[in-house]
Amino acid sequence: MKSKVKFKNNRTKKKQLLSARYSSFLEPTALINRLDRTRWFSPATLACIPLVFIIIALWAGAATAQDQELTPEYVKGVLDSIWILVASIFVIFMNAGFGMLETGFCRHKNAVNILAKNLIVFALATLVYWSIGFSIMFAGDHPFIGGGGFFLTGEATSYGLDPFPSGLPLPVFFLFQAAFAATAATIVSGAVAERIEFSAFLFFSLLITGISYPITGHWIWGGGWLAEMGFGDFAGSTAVHSVGGWAALVGAYILGPRMGKYDEDDQPRAIPGHNMGFATLGCLILWIGWFGFNPGSELAANENVAYIAVTTNLAAAAGGATATITSWLKDGKPDLSMIINGVLAGLVGITAGCNGVSYLEAVIIGAVAGIIVVFSVPLFDQLKVDDPVGATSVHLVCGIWGTLAVGIFVEDANILTQAIGIISVGLFTVIMSTIFWLALKATTGIRVHGEQEFEGLDIAEHGMEAYTGFMKEPDALGTGIVQKH
Amino acid sequence: MKSKVKFKNNRTKKKQLLSARYSSFLEPTALINRLDRTRWFSPATLACIPLVFIIIALWAGAATAQDQELTPEYVKGVLDSIWILVASIFVIFMNAGFGMLETGFCRHKNAVNILAKNLIVFALATLVYWSIGFSIMFAGDHPFIGGGGFFLTGEATSYGLDPFPSGLPLPVFFLFQAAFAATAATIVSGAVAERIEFSAFLFFSLLITGISYPITGHWIWGGGWLAEMGFGDFAGSTAVHSVGGWAALVGAYILGPRMGKYDEDDQPRAIPGHNMGFATLGCLILWIGWFGFNPGSELAANENVAYIAVTTNLAAAAGGATATITSWLKDGKPDLSMIINGVLAGLVGITAGCNGVSYLEAVIIGAVAGIIVVFSVPLFDQLKVDDPVGATSVHLVCGIWGTLAVGIFVEDANILTQAIGIISVGLFTVIMSTIFWLALKATTGIRVHGEQEFEGLDIAEHGMEAYTGFMKEPDALGTGIVQKH
Amino acid sequence: MKSKVKFKNNRTKKKQLLSARYSSFLEPTALINRLDRTRWFSPATLACIPLVFIIIALWAGAATAQDQELTPEYVKGVLDSIWILVASIFVIFMNAGFGMLETGFCRHKNAVNILAKNLIVFALATLVYWSIGFSIMFAGDHPFIGGGGFFLTGEATSYGLDPFPSGLPLPVFFLFQAAFAATAATIVSGAVAERIEFSAFLFFSLLITGISYPITGHWIWGGGWLAEMGFGDFAGSTAVHSVGGWAALVGAYILGPRMGKYDEDDQPRAIPGHNMGFATLGCLILWIGWFGFNPGSELAANENVAYIAVTTNLAAAAGGATATITSWLKDGKPDLSMIINGVLAGLVGITAGCNGVSYLEAVIIGAVAGIIVVFSVPLFDQLKVDDPVGATSVHLVCGIWGTLAVGIFVEDANILTQAIGIISVGLFTVIMSTIFWLALKATTGIRVHGEQEFEGLDIAEHGMEAYTGFMKEPDALGTGIVQKH
Repeated sequence: MKSKVKFKNNRTKKKQLLSARYSSFLEPTALINRLDRTRWFSPATLACIPLVFIIIALWAGAATAQDQELTPEYVKGVLDSIWILVASIFVIFMNAGFGMLETGFCRHKNAVNILAKNLIVFALATLVYWSIGFSIMFAGDHPFIGGGGFFLTGEATSYGLDPFPSGLPLPVFFLFQAAFAATAATIVSGAVAERIEFSAFLFFSLLITGISYPITGHWIWGGGWLAEMGFGDFAGSTAVHSVGGWAALVGAYILGPRMGKYDEDDQPRAIPGHNMGFATLGCLILWIGWFGFNPGSELAANENVAYIAVTTNLAAAAGGATATITSWLKDGKPDLSMIINGVLAGLVGITAGCNGVSYLEAVIIGAVAGIIVVFSVPLFDQLKVDDPVGATSVHLVCGIWGTLAVGIFVEDANILTQAIGIISVGLFTVIMSTIFWLALKATTGIRVHGEQEFEGLDIAEHGMEAYTGFMKEPDALGTGIVQKH
Repeated sequence: MKSKVKFKNNRTKKKQLLSARYSSFLEPTALINRLDRTRWFSPATLACIPLVFIIIALWAGAATAQDQELTPEYVKGVLDSIWILVASIFVIFMNAGFGMLETGFCRHKNAVNILAKNLIVFALATLVYWSIGFSIMFAGDHPFIGGGGFFLTGEATSYGLDPFPSGLPLPVFFLFQAAFAATAATIVSGAVAERIEFSAFLFFSLLITGISYPITGHWIWGGGWLAEMGFGDFAGSTAVHSVGGWAALVGAYILGPRMGKYDEDDQPRAIPGHNMGFATLGCLILWIGWFGFNPGSELAANENVAYIAVTTNLAAAAGGATATITSWLKDGKPDLSMIINGVLAGLVGITAGCNGVSYLEAVIIGAVAGIIVVFSVPLFDQLKVDDPVGATSVHLVCGIWGTLAVGIFVEDANILTQAIGIISVGLFTVIMSTIFWLALKATTGIRVHGEQEFEGLDIAEHGMEAYTGFMKEPDALGTGIVQKH
Repeated sequence: MKSKVKFKNNRTKKKQLLSARYSSFLEPTALINRLDRTRWFSPATLACIPLVFIIIALWAGAATAQDQELTPEYVKGVLDSIWILVASIFVIFMNAGFGMLETGFCRHKNAVNILAKNLIVFALATLVYWSIGFSIMFAGDHPFIGGGGFFLTGEATSYGLDPFPSGLPLPVFFLFQAAFAATAATIVSGAVAERIEFSAFLFFSLLITGISYPITGHWIWGGGWLAEMGFGDFAGSTAVHSVGGWAALVGAYILGPRMGKYDEDDQPRAIPGHNMGFATLGCLILWIGWFGFNPGSELAANENVAYIAVTTNLAAAAGGATATITSWLKDGKPDLSMIINGVLAGLVGITAGCNGVSYLEAVIIGAVAGIIVVFSVPLFDQLKVDDPVGATSVHLVCGIWGTLAVGIFVEDANILTQAIGIISVGLFTVIMSTIFWLALKATTGIRVHGEQEFEGLDIAEHGMEAYTGFMKEPDALGTGIVQKH
C-alpha cells in the first residue's frame, strides 16, 4: 500500500509540475512559444535547460511549502473558487432550461431547429467570449471599451481580479462570465424562433456575445462609465437580461411575424406551444440555474450569499403567484405559460437588486414583475412584434423594471442613474443589433422562405424531424396562410 | 487597472453597507419603519443623521476588521453556509423531479394541470412558509406549536440557530426548510391528480405548508415534544414524506377514484401514464435531489456528510433492484413504473436513518422498501384509494417503514418511541387534512365535474393542451364510464 | 429558546455518538458482530460495559476537542469532501443525461426499455461496485488486480487514501468512483439498444462494473502497472470512456445489426430517433455532469479545479462547433444528432488531458474530436456495427484520441506509453467483454426474437408503452424486414 500511496503523491506532484509548466501557455507569449517549438532544440534553447531545472526545483519547493502552509486565507480562496465554479455549473445548466422552455413553447415542426440553436449557442458563445468578449468586457482601463489579453492570455489582475487567494482564480471568473454571456444570446433565440435562418442566428450570436454584450457589460461590470456613475445592477437585469431582450426585440421586429400569426383583421392569433412538459421543465431548470446566477454574482463565498438566494426565491414565487392570479382574473383560466413566464419575470426582476433589498421588497418586485408580464405579452402581440416565447416581455420589460426597482428600493441608488443606464445600454444594444441584423439580412439573409417556414425548419434546415414515429396534425394555421402568399 | 480594482472594492464596500442597513428590515420593527418612511425628514429623524454616520463608520471599520481576520471558524461557517445552499438547490430541483414524475405517470389530457400544480406549489409554499410556516416550525419554546418572528423577522437564534459562524446564517436555514416544506405539498399533488380542482389544490397546499406540516415539523425538528422524547427522524421519512403521504391518502380517499378506474366488477383497471421518459427523468432528478435532502440535513459541512450520501445511494440502488426483481417475479415482466417507485421507496425508507445505519443496513432498508412498494401499490387499488402515481405507497408506507427502521437498526433509538411518533404525526395530519379537504369541499369544491374529467383538466381548467399538433387516441376508458354517469 | 438550543446540541452529540458507534460496522468484523448481537447480554459482554463507557467518554471528549480546534487543515479537508460530493452528484446526474440521450436517439417502441436500462444500471453498478468492484480497483498492492476490504469494510488508507483531513473521507471517494463505474456500463446501453434482452444487459452490467472495469481501472488509477509506467489518463478517456466503448463495440458486433438497418444492397439505412428534445436535454445534462467528472477528478478542492472546468468547456464547445461545420459541409445540412455527438466527442476527448493542456490545446483536442465523430459514425455503419446512438464513435474513438492527445500535447507524457495503455486496456476489455457476451448468449440468450424486436421491446419485455394515448406511425422499416425473415 505504501508504494501506491507514494505513487499517488508522485502523480500529484508530477501533475502540479505539469500545471506549472503549462500555465506558461496562458501568458501573452504562449502562442509564439508554441510556434517556436520546433526550434527548441537550438543551442539557445539547450542552454536554458539547466535554468529550467532550477526554476522547477524552486517552484516544487514553493509548492511543497504552500501545501504545508494551509492558511485560512488560502482555504477561503479555494472555497470562493469552488463556490463560483458550482454557481457557474448551475448557470450553464440554464442553457438546458432555455432550450426546453423555448422548444416547448414552439411548434413541433421547429423543435429540432430550436434545440440545435440552444445547444450550439453555448458552444459559440464560449469560443468567442474566450477569444475576444471577455477581454473587451474586463481588460483595459478605458471607460467605454476594454481590450488586451485576448484568448485569456493576461494575468488575473489585468482583468480586474485581486491576486488569489483574495481574488478569484482567473479560470473560474472567466467560466462564470462566459455562462452569463451565453445567456444573453440564448434569450434572443426564443424571440426569433420559427422563422430565422439557422446560420443567421449563429452569426448574430457570435456578434452579440463577442462584441455588443461585452461592451455594455464593460460599462456596468468592467469598471466602465456606468460603474463610475454608481449604476446598480448586481446580477444583470440590465447587463444580461435587457441586453438579450433588446437584441431579441430588434430581431423579432426586423424578421417580422410568423406566417399565420395575424388574421385577416390583423388581430394576433395564439400559436400554442407543442410540449408544455418541456416548457415547465425548462422553467424549473432556469429557477435552479438562477441560484447560481444571482448568489454567484457575489463572486465570493460568504454569509450573504444565501440571503441573495432567498430574495431570488421569494421574487420568483411572488412572480409566479401574481401571474397566476392576474391571468386567472384577466382570461378566466390560469394559463400555464403565464405561470411559467411569471416565475421567470420575478427572477429577472430581482436580478439587479437581489443583494440589496429586504425580503418584503423582493416579494413586491417579483409580484409586480408577475403582473407586468401578463399584460406585456399581449401588448407586444398588438405591436406586431411576434415573440413566440415571450422573451421580450420577460427579459426586456422585467429587466427594465428590476433595474428601476433598485432605484426605488435601494436608497443609495439613484433612480435617475438607473434610468440613464437602462437607456444608454438599450440604445447601444438596439443600434448594434440593428446593424448586425441588417448586415446579416443583406448578406446571408435572415429569414427562411415561406415554404420552408410552412414545412417547418426541422425538415427545411436540418433534414430531420424531432418526433419520428408520431402522427401529427396538419398545421392548419400555416396552411391557410401559405395559400394566401 | 488600479482605478478599476479600487472601484470594485468600493462597490463591495457600498454593497456591504447596503446589506447592513437593509438587514434592519429583517427585524420585527421593519414594517413599522417602512410605514414611517414618509416621516424620515421630520426634525427627530434629521437629528439622527450624525448618529447614523457614526454607526455606519463603526460598522465599516468592523467590516474591514472582519475581512482581515479570516479565522478557521469563519471559513468553516461560510463553508457550512455554501454547502447547505447547494444542498437546498438540489432539494428545490426535486420540484422538477416530482413534476416530471407525476406528469409522466398521468394521462396527456391532464398534463398541463399537473405541471401547473407542481410549478405553482413551490411558489405558494415559499410564500406561506416565509409568512408563517417557518415561524410555527422553529420559533418559540412551546412543545406543541412554535410562533413569533413571522416573515423571517426574528434573529437567527430565535429560530434555534447558534450565531454565525458556529450556526448557519438564517437565510440558508430558511431556504433549506422551505424546500422541504414544498416537498410535502408536492407529494399530495400526484395522489389527487386527474380529478382535483386546480384552486382546491392551491388552497390545500397553502394550508398544509403553512399550518399542518410546520406543527408536526415543530414536534420533530423544532424542539417539540417528539424531539424531547428522542424520536429519531434524521431527514424526514416521517416529518416530510409520511406527512405528505397522509395528506395525499386523505385527499385521494375523499376525492374518490378517477372515473373508469374500476370496472363493472369493481376491479381496478390500470390507467397507464402517458410519458415514461418524463417519469424516468423525474425519478433520476429526485435521486439527485435526495443528495441534497439527506446529506444536507446534517445542516453543516463535515466529514460525515458523504457517509450519508452513500447510505442514501445504497438504499436507492437496493430499492430499485428489489422492486425490479419483485415486479418481475410477481407479474412476469419488469415494470418500469415499479423500478421507478422502487428507487424512490428506497430513498424514502433511508431518509430517517441515513446518518445512523451501516452500509449493509442501508441496503436492507432500501431492499425491503423496494419489495413493500410493489405490493403496496395494488393494495391501495384494492382499497379503492386511487393514487395515480403511487405517492401513498412510496411516501407514506415507506416513510413509516423508514421511521420504524431507525428503531430496529439504530440501537439508541427506541422502536416504541418511533411508533408513537409515526402514529401521533399520522393522526394529527389525517385530522388536519380531513378538516382542510372537507372545508374546501364545502366551499370551493374539490372535484371537477365528470365532463371536465372526461375532457381532461388541461382544456377544462386551463384552456390549453400539453401536446398541440400531435394526434391522440380517444380515451376509451373515460368514454365508457362517462356514458354510465 | 435556551432549552431548544441545548436540545439541538444534544441531538447533534447523540448523532455523533451514533456515527462513531456505527462506524464500527464498517470494519471487517462488522458482520460477525451483528450476528453475535444476540449474545451481547452474556457475562463477557456485560463486563465490557464499563470499558465501553470509558471509550465513549474519551471519544466524546476528543470530538469536543476536535470541534474546538477548527484548524485550516480540517476545514480544507471538509472543503475537499464537500466539493467531491457535489462533483459526485453531477456525475450521477449523467445517468439522466445518458438516459435521455439514448432514449431520444432510439425509436419510441423501445423507449421504456432504454429508460429502464439506464435507471437500473446505476442501481446495479452501485451495489456490485460496493460489493467487489471498488475493492478490486483500489485495494491491495498487486500491479494487475486489487482486492480485499470488500463491501467497503477496509480503512481509508487500505484503498490508497491519505488519512482525513489530508485525504478524502472514504465514503466520498467511493461515491465518486461508483458514479464513474456506472458511466462505463451506461455507455454500453446505447450501443446495444433496440434488440438486446433486458436480463442480458443487467447481467453484463454487473460483470463489467464488478470485474472488468475495476481491473483496468486498477492498472490506471489504482497504482497498477500502467500507473507505474506513467500512463496519463487524468479523468478517464481510456479508463472509463474507451472501456465502455470497447464493451459497447463487442456487444453491438456480437448482437448484430437491428432488423431493417441494412437494405437489400447491404447499405445502411438511417433509423431516426424519436425524441430530439430528450436527446438534446441529455447532451446538456451530460455537459453539466462533465463539470463534476473532469474537475472532480482532481480529488481535492484547490485553485486548479476551475482551470480543468475551462479546458473541459472549451473542448466541448470546439467539438460542437467543428461537428456542426463538418456535418454541414459533408451532408449539406447541420444535423442535430451530429452537433450533440460533437459536443460529447469534445468532452470525451479532453477527459484524459483536461488538467495538463493549454486552453488552445483544449480547443484543438475538442475540435479534432468533433471532426472525427462525424466521419466515425457512418464508418461503423459501413463496418456493419449497428450502434443506434453512436456510443462507439463518441466514447471509444474519441476516448482513444483523447488519450493519444496527452502524448502529443503534454510533454512529460510519452505517446508510446499512451499507446501501450490504450492497446492493453482495449485488448483486455475486448477479451473480457467477448467472454461475458458469449457466456450470456450461451445461457440466458442476448437477443430478443424477431417478432419482439419488430413489436418493440417496450411491449415485448415490459408489457407497457412509453407514450400511451398518442397515435404512432407504423414502423415501415421493421415491417418490410420482418416479412423477409
